Amino acid sequence: MQKRTVFFISDGTGITAGALGKLLEHFPSTNFTQVRLPFTDTLDKIKLAQDAILHAAEEDANRPVVIMSLGDMELRNSIKKSDAYFIDLFNTFIDPLGVELKQKPLTGAGIAHSVMGTKYNDRMEAVNFTLNHDDGMTNSGLEEAQVILIGVSRCGKTPTSVYLAMQFGIKAANYPLIPEDFERGTLPAVLHKHLDKIFGLTIKPERLHAVRNERRAGSFYASLDNCKKEIATAENLMRNAGITWADSTSRSVEELSAIILEKTRKPSNA
Amino acid sequence: MQKRTVFFISDGTGITAGALGKLLEHFPSTNFTQVRLPFTDTLDKIKLAQDAILHAAEEDANRPVVIMSLGDMELRNSIKKSDAYFIDLFNTFIDPLGVELKQKPLTGAGIAHSVMGTKYNDRMEAVNFTLNHDDGMTNSGLEEAQVILIGVSRCGKTPTSVYLAMQFGIKAANYPLIPEDFERGTLPAVLHKHLDKIFGLTIKPERLHAVRNERRAGSFYASLDNCKKEIATAENLMRNAGITWADSTSRSVEELSAIILEKTRKPSNA
Repeated sequence: MQKRTVFFISDGTGITAGALGKLLEHFPSTNFTQVRLPFTDTLDKIKLAQDAILHAAEEDANRPVVIMSLGDMELRNSIKKSDAYFIDLFNTFIDPLGVELKQKPLTGAGIAHSVMGTKYNDRMEAVNFTLNHDDGMTNSGLEEAQVILIGVSRCGKTPTSVYLAMQFGIKAANYPLIPEDFERGTLPAVLHKHLDKIFGLTIKPERLHAVRNERRAGSFYASLDNCKKEIATAENLMRNAGITWADSTSRSVEELSAIILEKTRKPSNA
Repeated sequence: MQKRTVFFISDGTGITAGALGKLLEHFPSTNFTQVRLPFTDTLDKIKLAQDAILHAAEEDANRPVVIMSLGDMELRNSIKKSDAYFIDLFNTFIDPLGVELKQKPLTGAGIAHSVMGTKYNDRMEAVNFTLNHDDGMTNSGLEEAQVILIGVSRCGKTPTSVYLAMQFGIKAANYPLIPEDFERGTLPAVLHKHLDKIFGLTIKPERLHAVRNERRAGSFYASLDNCKKEIATAENLMRNAGITWADSTSRSVEELSAIILEKTRKPSNA
């Protein structure tokens, strides 16, 4: 298997450049090592980066891939003297987009992820809201929620809520469906007036059994029988209430969040 | 101010394409409207996207920007019949990278954000760990933490911890520094054996005062005097213990996380 080191070199956090690292998943038969070099904002640091590139090339017996976002032209030109395959966000995206917009881009370091960035405060407020409304912790302030996730215990509500908040600035509460809901056969009363923003998660019994067993091995709660019953009852309950749901068994929080945003048709600028 | 609509069109979650939206911050004098169109994986959905592009062009009196990630060649060619400025992740990145790697990229939908993706399970485990070790909630399992953030109440420890976990798969606990620590003048005893992974956050008194006032207006806790004293004492305490710290006052969680990763020198593949 081919070995390649991928460097993400940025004068800021390197998070935008790093996001492109996801595209490496399109090449499953290369063995990538990913190295982040944020705050590379001086010629001295560029020199260190070049040493690392040279070293990796020797180790891998292949030239590295460099995904770079450097506003300063001198830094940009220096790093390119190394022997590597370069993907330059300025060359490829920012400068051509500037031509289209007839505007010169800002080239200061760390522009993309400053607190001045679009909607930063909304995102942080959403994260606070979501953590304070995790797992049915409180009913107060639910009218502020933009999404309320429901589902059986350990089906993925919490990480999905947190991702919705952190990534998209969505205030996402979540409520577990528990044995007393199943006995009553209806959603918790407090949720009745929020049906329009409720989204359900479900999961395959075998997977839920495995997840619960990691926490409480051998318990009734984790038993396959109980998981099957809880899931069937929860799905019935959601069906009767007209709630849309998605199966979390083989979906990432990224995929679930994208589905939830689409189905709940929240306008999003993120 | 020039108006432009930016469409993120993807056959998957659109999250990688959306990440490039951060680059729009380089053009502060354009008024961007961002529209995400995930799961655009049929010709019918492409047609809807084209209608939306046409509509936005009329509204803005400017052609839209389309940042797209579509594996299927027919979908890719269809959307490009619209009048827009296209940034095509396949054309620009994935296909040329394939040439460099001498490999054909996978073109299925949703490759980048599947649960099969690199390190997905590590990230989810880190999110669970972090939420269970928020705000000094428990001392058990601290040896598993990769980073332990400390600082006065409301200085940004929680959102930074959550970001470290969700984005980088770092198990990040956090501990508040509280009046009894200040009286004693030392870090909580339980942290003494973890000094190598502790990182401090601090904040300007005026900012802390404002943040605390939102929660408990007029309280002693929120008073500027108390904020000043807590911060000075906390910084002294960290200085004496040899803890590195960063000021969160005007830094985003992205910036803080990048700094923490760099200073704690954790190897990261994210």
